[in-house]
Amino acid sequence: MTNPTAAMLVIGDEILSGRTRDSNMHHLAQRLTAHGIDMTEMRVVRDERAAITDAVTALSAAHTHVFTSGGIGPTHDDITADCVAAAFGKAIDVRDDARAVLQAHYDAKGIEMNESRLRMARIPEGATLIDNPVSAAPGFTLGNVHVMAGVPRIFEAMVDGLLARLEGGTPPVSRNLTIRRGEGDVAGPLRTLAGENPALSFGSYPFADDRGGAVNVVVRGAEPKAVDAAIAHLAEVFPDAEL
Amino acid sequence: MTNPTAAMLVIGDEILSGRTRDSNMHHLAQRLTAHGIDMTEMRVVRDERAAITDAVTALSAAHTHVFTSGGIGPTHDDITADCVAAAFGKAIDVRDDARAVLQAHYDAKGIEMNESRLRMARIPEGATLIDNPVSAAPGFTLGNVHVMAGVPRIFEAMVDGLLARLEGGTPPVSRNLTIRRGEGDVAGPLRTLAGENPALSFGSYPFADDRGGAVNVVVRGAEPKAVDAAIAHLAEVFPDAEL
Repeated sequence: MTNPTAAMLVIGDEILSGRTRDSNMHHLAQRLTAHGIDMTEMRVVRDERAAITDAVTALSAAHTHVFTSGGIGPTHDDITADCVAAAFGKAIDVRDDARAVLQAHYDAKGIEMNESRLRMARIPEGATLIDNPVSAAPGFTLGNVHVMAGVPRIFEAMVDGLLARLEGGTPPVSRNLTIRRGEGDVAGPLRTLAGENPALSFGSYPFADDRGGAVNVVVRGAEPKAVDAAIAHLAEVFPDAEL
Repeated sequence: MTNPTAAMLVIGDEILSGRTRDSNMHHLAQRLTAHGIDMTEMRVVRDERAAITDAVTALSAAHTHVFTSGGIGPTHDDITADCVAAAFGKAIDVRDDARAVLQAHYDAKGIEMNESRLRMARIPEGATLIDNPVSAAPGFTLGNVHVMAGVPRIFEAMVDGLLARLEGGTPPVSRNLTIRRGEGDVAGPLRTLAGENPALSFGSYPFADDRGGAVNVVVRGAEPKAVDAAIAHLAEVFPDAEL
């Protein structure tokens, strides 16, 4: 059995201009890996209808799941919900269940409902709501696309609730070996080992610290024994390696 | 005159698995904005031939420039150069100028050239080298695609050299107004203002600090006077706003 695959789509001019540094991609990448879902692609697009709709259509066709972040607030440039509805050919309008969630939240806080806030209750037909325990305005799942907020605290809370109901696969086993050699010295043995173990993935990440240059070799795979055997082999080739 | 557009393509399983948090996207986004080049898309793909080649082909056709990060080291999974060559239908082999740069660097450091290190001198035909003042192994420009290293210190040094020879456009003027209201209260006036000023972009970014919830409104555009006028208008609508 192979794991489900996933793509992430971040919507936001502020990321592309460099005003804001995204943190949702890294957060979701870690969460999905732990859940046994393989993230294989991420994209960031502008707050523009064609860019969002085209990306949703392409990613939805290619992956088990698509997770989006951003563009579901009350302002004029929050158009993600409309674009996801359009990508699936679904109507979108204020939905009673979403409106009730918002109204209860605003009533409790003494905030007035207005036209802008009501936009956040616009949900495509056939979608399932994603709970927002932080600020009430819900995300939603339509088809295989999970639409969430861009504000990191809200995004992370939505991911918590969402992953609890998504079937995961087998989280890969990952082991690290630090070899205090140049990457060019590690590459040869690593290539041989990778050729002999097509079911494993071998990454090599050079870095420098106060002891000098070194390489972290990361071996990943579904079978713990195979990962351990590859690490043991590398530790023989490079006797000074540190687990 | 509109500004050149750009896309960024990050190549790396380690970003998608959540092992590593990318910093090159945010760095390049800020540098391009300051250089008057509009980044309109970013993608992260796996270390796989089809994924890289397809992304290079699609992004190269849609943008003035494509900037890549990652996959040009000495190991078996460093296949970016081959994929970019394939996307342009160009041959790739060890090139004398790149080999000479590497050999001089290794000679100075007393490091032995080997087959793995020599891979980093493989450059597509017709490409222009991008200088690597950190560790010598060059990036390259082929067509409108600029291929750079993934290690942030090397990536950033390559961007420095590259941008010095790329024609930029007009950096947008950007001004910020902090409004201590809910985003749902700011959205209405912002929508009206955005409708009246199609040449400007209006972003709204809610946040919370020890004084409570607030919204940063960012107005961007090519014309400083138009940006200032929009900010002045918002400051009238929200007299407690902070510049």
